[in-house]
Amino acid sequence: MAFEILHEDTRTRARLGRLATAHGSVDTPVFMDVGTLGTVKALEPRDLVELGTQVVLGNTYHLLLRPGPEIIAAAGGLHKFMRWDGPILTDSGGFQVFSLAKLRKMTEDGCLFNSHIDGREVFLGPRESMAMQKTLGSDIAMVFDECLPYPCDRDRAAKSVEQTLRWAELSKAQPHADGQQVFGIVQGGVYDELRRHCAERLVEIGFDGYAIGGISVGEPEEFMYKAVEASVPFLPREAPRYVMGLGVMHQMAECVARGVDMFDCVIPTRIARHGTAITRRGNVAIKAAKWAFDSSPVEEGCDCYCCRNFSRSYVRHLLNCDEILGLRLLTIHNVRALNRFMAEMRSAIADGTFADWKEQVRKDTTENE
Amino acid sequence: MAFEILHEDTRTRARLGRLATAHGSVDTPVFMDVGTLGTVKALEPRDLVELGTQVVLGNTYHLLLRPGPEIIAAAGGLHKFMRWDGPILTDSGGFQVFSLAKLRKMTEDGCLFNSHIDGREVFLGPRESMAMQKTLGSDIAMVFDECLPYPCDRDRAAKSVEQTLRWAELSKAQPHADGQQVFGIVQGGVYDELRRHCAERLVEIGFDGYAIGGISVGEPEEFMYKAVEASVPFLPREAPRYVMGLGVMHQMAECVARGVDMFDCVIPTRIARHGTAITRRGNVAIKAAKWAFDSSPVEEGCDCYCCRNFSRSYVRHLLNCDEILGLRLLTIHNVRALNRFMAEMRSAIADGTFADWKEQVRKDTTENE
Repeated sequence: MAFEILHEDTRTRARLGRLATAHGSVDTPVFMDVGTLGTVKALEPRDLVELGTQVVLGNTYHLLLRPGPEIIAAAGGLHKFMRWDGPILTDSGGFQVFSLAKLRKMTEDGCLFNSHIDGREVFLGPRESMAMQKTLGSDIAMVFDECLPYPCDRDRAAKSVEQTLRWAELSKAQPHADGQQVFGIVQGGVYDELRRHCAERLVEIGFDGYAIGGISVGEPEEFMYKAVEASVPFLPREAPRYVMGLGVMHQMAECVARGVDMFDCVIPTRIARHGTAITRRGNVAIKAAKWAFDSSPVEEGCDCYCCRNFSRSYVRHLLNCDEILGLRLLTIHNVRALNRFMAEMRSAIADGTFADWKEQVRKDTTENE
Repeated sequence: MAFEILHEDTRTRARLGRLATAHGSVDTPVFMDVGTLGTVKALEPRDLVELGTQVVLGNTYHLLLRPGPEIIAAAGGLHKFMRWDGPILTDSGGFQVFSLAKLRKMTEDGCLFNSHIDGREVFLGPRESMAMQKTLGSDIAMVFDECLPYPCDRDRAAKSVEQTLRWAELSKAQPHADGQQVFGIVQGGVYDELRRHCAERLVEIGFDGYAIGGISVGEPEEFMYKAVEASVPFLPREAPRYVMGLGVMHQMAECVARGVDMFDCVIPTRIARHGTAITRRGNVAIKAAKWAFDSSPVEEGCDCYCCRNFSRSYVRHLLNCDEILGLRLLTIHNVRALNRFMAEMRSAIADGTFADWKEQVRKDTTENE
């Protein structure tokens, strides 16, 4: 069994689990770091080990365009190309085709689009996506799906769910890399019965894990939790559940309370490059003038290389001078901050204090915002 | 005695030395890495230790503008601010005032200029420069001098040398940080008798070491060596000699053959950010299409983190995607390449094979260019 449930919280749906993959096991709930183009931005594989990152997410869309499948294949897959020996999850590219590229034509077979890099025409559908993910050799591949925008009317959502289900079935039927798991994706927007239908149908097809997609696309926070609540009860207890694109502390805690095991988001690395630190007490704009003389670390008590060595004053100076080291130090901190947060969450579940801890997290992280 | 000569080559003026500083001793000949704004670009202090960097050079001009003396003073000096425990050499800022800023007015007291950052008026002369270098707390401070352009006529050069000498005397008379050494700078352009005069006069004033300035400012290579030859014989044997702004392998070897002990240059970090690797066999443009599928390291046999782990194909991909990791990996390699080169040079001097080794270096590094 790939996913083992080790412990469950008595007051919520939160659970501790362990997901076995071809490149080692993953303790859940887990936050996965996004490595779009074969690197978690500004970090080396040895940094990720030091920071406690368990899974790196690779983007099929981006890697398809650059460096392209031939170069990755010649290197022996994404693990060898980027020298990351731990688990890799790859998305299907569907989200980027709809959000980043210029979509030209959508058919039953997939999407014809213009690359956002050089405008060239590329076709990506379930067959092409799964073939690319096979080449990447990820431990977990995601089915090719249509990620709906918010808002979206019911008819459009219903049609899209049927398309997503046909693509899910086709994705599963494609050849996969050795030991590669495949996750289905529950869509359905804000419509509970569509979520349920999509979840039930995906379970009939049968996947190694299930994502809840179309979340964190601009909808109000309560819709996010509603979408999770409308999906989780219809997913198998013994399979991991994954909310895509979410990396806000209290939102992850709320999703875990509703039975979710996995998350990913560009937040920690992206906001680091904009000078924002993630802390257990909310985000901090390190470029602000008030830190000019501040000798304290980015986050008191943090064990990362940045916080063990450097002052806010120094990191602020680097950021204000556009020094690469500033972006890097803050990326190191932010990645560590979320990994420490997930470890804290796992302890709270194990200790039976998760429900209270979750409320404390909401207070701690939203009062400073 | 701060500088101890450990060994001399029998066929040239090359020598092995050890320079004692307040933050440890330095094996010479040495290449020093430029840390303009309180960071060797893209590198952490722990990287510098791993790469074998012995001395970091800080730029008084840049640090004066950002973050400014108050913030550095509050941190307890540059070592503590940037968390580099090894030796630091600071330049005087003179070179940047003449090359980077908009010079408004030059008087006997120094230079009024507009900051290249925000245009504000700043005054920098020997008093201000030495005060800033005292605040920085560098192990070695450089006197404030005028760096002449190439070409420059004899009258202009002669007048400038007198200005440099008056500023050198004034620089020496200023208060310095505890244990801070002060180096004089020999100017004089391409005029041998001016170089000699400047050197002799500086030695009368008396400094801990002597730089040969105004080199690598666009002059032909033979003028560079001529300037060194015109200066070194008039400098004390027991003091270190430093050629500023030079980082090309065969040129450093030629200068060492003429009695030089120390170098610095932005080359390794700057060209890394442009995608060029320094190797013992010449520079390599890693972005080139011919490396797209190349599984070999940036430099075969190099022991740096980049070469031990990653392929040219991967580094090229990162550079072509403007990934920070690409710049960082190539910076790591280039810094290590020059540090390894200097270690190789020191071995050749110790083994008595320096003269032949130098000719081999010229062949190895210029044939590929």
